[in-house]
Amino acid sequence: MERGQRALETIDGQAGQNVIDALADIAPDFATYLFEFPFGDIYSRPGLSLRDREVATISALAAMGTAQPQLKVHLEAGLNVGISQEEITEILMQMAVYAGFPAALNGLFAAKEVFAARASEQAEERT
Amino acid sequence: MERGQRALETIDGQAGQNVIDALADIAPDFATYLFEFPFGDIYSRPGLSLRDREVATISALAAMGTAQPQLKVHLEAGLNVGISQEEITEILMQMAVYAGFPAALNGLFAAKEVFAARASEQAEERT
Amino acid sequence: MERGQRALETIDGQAGQNVIDALADIAPDFATYLFEFPFGDIYSRPGLSLRDREVATISALAAMGTAQPQLKVHLEAGLNVGISQEEITEILMQMAVYAGFPAALNGLFAAKEVFAARASEQAEERT
Amino acid sequence: MERGQRALETIDGQAGQNVIDALADIAPDFATYLFEFPFGDIYSRPGLSLRDREVATISALAAMGTAQPQLKVHLEAGLNVGISQEEITEILMQMAVYAGFPAALNGLFAAKEVFAARASEQAEERT
Amino acid sequence: MERGQRALETIDGQAGQNVIDALADIAPDFATYLFEFPFGDIYSRPGLSLRDREVATISALAAMGTAQPQLKVHLEAGLNVGISQEEITEILMQMAVYAGFPAALNGLFAAKEVFAARASEQAEERT
Amino acid sequence: MERGQRALETIDGQAGQNVIDALADIAPDFATYLFEFPFGDIYSRPGLSLRDREVATISALAAMGTAQPQLKVHLEAGLNVGISQEEITEILMQMAVYAGFPAALNGLFAAKEVFAARASEQAEERT
Repeated sequence: MERGQRALETIDGQAGQNVIDALADIAPDFATYLFEFPFGDIYSRPGLSLRDREVATISALAAMGTAQPQLKVHLEAGLNVGISQEEITEILMQMAVYAGFPAALNGLFAAKEVFAARASEQAEERT
Repeated sequence: MERGQRALETIDGQAGQNVIDALADIAPDFATYLFEFPFGDIYSRPGLSLRDREVATISALAAMGTAQPQLKVHLEAGLNVGISQEEITEILMQMAVYAGFPAALNGLFAAKEVFAARASEQAEERT
Repeated sequence: MERGQRALETIDGQAGQNVIDALADIAPDFATYLFEFPFGDIYSRPGLSLRDREVATISALAAMGTAQPQLKVHLEAGLNVGISQEEITEILMQMAVYAGFPAALNGLFAAKEVFAARASEQAEERT
Repeated sequence: MERGQRALETIDGQAGQNVIDALADIAPDFATYLFEFPFGDIYSRPGLSLRDREVATISALAAMGTAQPQLKVHLEAGLNVGISQEEITEILMQMAVYAGFPAALNGLFAAKEVFAARASEQAEERT
Repeated sequence: MERGQRALETIDGQAGQNVIDALADIAPDFATYLFEFPFGDIYSRPGLSLRDREVATISALAAMGTAQPQLKVHLEAGLNVGISQEEITEILMQMAVYAGFPAALNGLFAAKEVFAARASEQAEERT
Repeated sequence: MERGQRALETIDGQAGQNVIDALADIAPDFATYLFEFPFGDIYSRPGLSLRDREVATISALAAMGTAQPQLKVHLEAGLNVGISQEEITEILMQMAVYAGFPAALNGLFAAKEVFAARASEQAEERT
C-alpha cells in the first residue's frame, strides 16, 4: 500500500490526492483499494514504462467516453511522466479512428482545459 | 492514399489486407477511406511514434470491448512495430483498472490466440 | 398486442418470429412485452415513417456494437420496409464518423452476410 | 476540403463553426480532418439523402449516450435538413427500445433545450 | 397504467415525478410509456422483490456510466425500498471489478450527493 | 489471497477455475490479482450479502453487453449463491428498461444456455 501511495503521488500529483480526500467520508476503504490495486500492483510492475502506461490510460478513457473527470486526472498525469502536449493531442486525435469523432473532440476539449490550467499555474509560480 | 497503403502494409501486414479484401464486394469506397484517413492521415503524422500509436489503439479497443476482430489485428500490429509480448500483456492487464476485469480478460484471451498463431507460423517458417 | 404482432410480422418477418420462439421456454412474458412496447406502442405511432424508424434502429445498433444478432434482424427489416442495399451500406459507413471504424466494419460485415443470405434465398425461390 | 466546408455550413450552421473555432489553438489539423472525412467524404456521397444521414446520426449519438454536445449539434442539423420536431421526438423515444429509457430521456431533454433555443432565436428575429 | 403510477410513486418519489413533469411539453406520451412498461409491467411483476430490482438497477446504471441523472433517481429509490447507505456503497465499490475504477468512483460521488441531500432534507424536517 | 481463492471456489465453482487455468501461460499474475482484489477484497467484505453481490454483477454485465463469457460465469454463480432461475430471468428482463431490449435478449439467451447445461449435468449425476 505504501508503494501505491508513492506511485500515486508521482503520477497523479494533487489531482490524485483530491480523489482520495473526496472518498474519505463515503468510502475510505475504496481509497485503500485505489492505492493497493491500480497503483501498488499494476503501475508498480516493471514490465511496462510509466510513460507507456499513461498512453494506454489516456487512450482507454478517451475511447470509453464515460470517465471525463478521470481522463483529466490522467492528462495531467501524462504530462507528469513526460508525454508532451503535442503527443497527447496526437493520441486524442487518433481516437477518432477507433471510437469516433465525438470521442476525439471531447478528449481534445478536456486537454484544452488541462493545458490551460497548467499554463496559468506556471505563470503564477513565476510571479 | 498511396501513403496510407504503405502505412497499412507496414503496420497491419496480412491482417489489414484481409479487411480490405473483405470490403471489395460490399463497400469498396470504405477501403479507400481506411487508407486515406486512419493510415494516410493519422498514422503518417510525425508527432507520435508508431509504437505509441499502437499502445494507444490496443488500449482503446480492449477498453471498449466491442471490436474483438480489430483488437486482434492491432495486437499483431503492435508486435510488428516493436511492442513485446510482455508489454502487450501489461497493457491488457492494466485495462482491468479502467474498464473492468472482463475487458482485461477478453483482451488477454485475444492476445493468447494471436501469440499462439504467430508462434506456429514461425515454427512453420523454420521447417 | 395484436397491433404489435402484425407490426412485427410486417417489419421483421421470419427473423422476428425466431426471437419470439426462442423466448418461449425461458421468458414467454418477455415476448409479450416485445409485441406490446416496441412494436405495439413505438413502431405503430404515426409520427415517423417505418423507413425512418429502421434507419434509426440500424444506426443505433451499429453504433452501440453490443447487439450483433439484433443488428442482423434489423438489416433484414430495413430491406423489408424499402431501404436499398446501397443506402444501408451508406448508413453503416457513416457510423465510422460517430462510433469509429471498427463499428462501421463490423456493421458492414453483418450486412454482407444478410445480403448474401437474401440473394441465395431469392435464387432458391426462382428455381 | 472545400466541399466539406460547404457541407458543414449547410448542415451544422453556427454550431459546427463553433467546434472548428474551439479546435484552432489545440488541434487545427483536426478541424481539417473534420472537413475532409465526415463532411467532404461521407456527407457528400450521393447514395443517401442528407435527411436520412441526420436520422442516422441523431439515433447513433442518442443510443451511445457519450456525446451529448455532438447530439445537440445534430439535433440542430436535423432541423436544418428538414426533420420536424415531432419526428425528432419520435426518433429519440424509439431509442428507449434499443438503448434503454435513460438514453431516450437524456436525448429528449437535449432536444427540449435545442427546440427552446431555436424558438427564442426565432422570436428575437421577429422583433 | 394506474398500477405503474402507484409503483413509480412508491419507488422513485419526487424525483420520478420531476421526470414526468419535464416530459410534459416535449413528449407527454413517453411519460405514459414510463408508467406502463418499466413501472406497470416490469416493477409490478411478483417474481423479484423491489429491493432486488433496485440493486439491479443501481448496478446497471453505475456500470454503464451514461445515465448519471437516472442513477441518482435510483440511488434515492434504493434508499426508499430499504437498501442501506452502506449497502449502496458496497454495490458501487463492486462495480470497479466489472466496469472499472472510474465507473465506481463516479457512482460513489453521485451517492455522496444523494446521501447529503437526504441528510439536509431530514435535518430540515426536524426543525 | 487464500481468502480470495476460497471465495472464488464457493461462488464461481468450476467456471472460475477454468478462467484461472486459461491465464496460466499468458498472465499468471493476473490470476493472483483476480484472487486478491475482486474475491479477496470485494466479495469478502461483510457489508453486502453474496446474493446481493451476484444480483449486482449479473445486472452490470448484462447491461454492459461486452462481457458475455463473464456473464455466463456469474449466471452460474448466481444459482450457486441462491438466486432462483425465475429471479435471474426477472433481472435480465428488467435490463430492457435500462440498457435496451437487445441487452435483455442477449442476457436471456445466455441464461437459457446456462440453465440447460446445469439441467443436463444434474440429469447425468442422477444416472
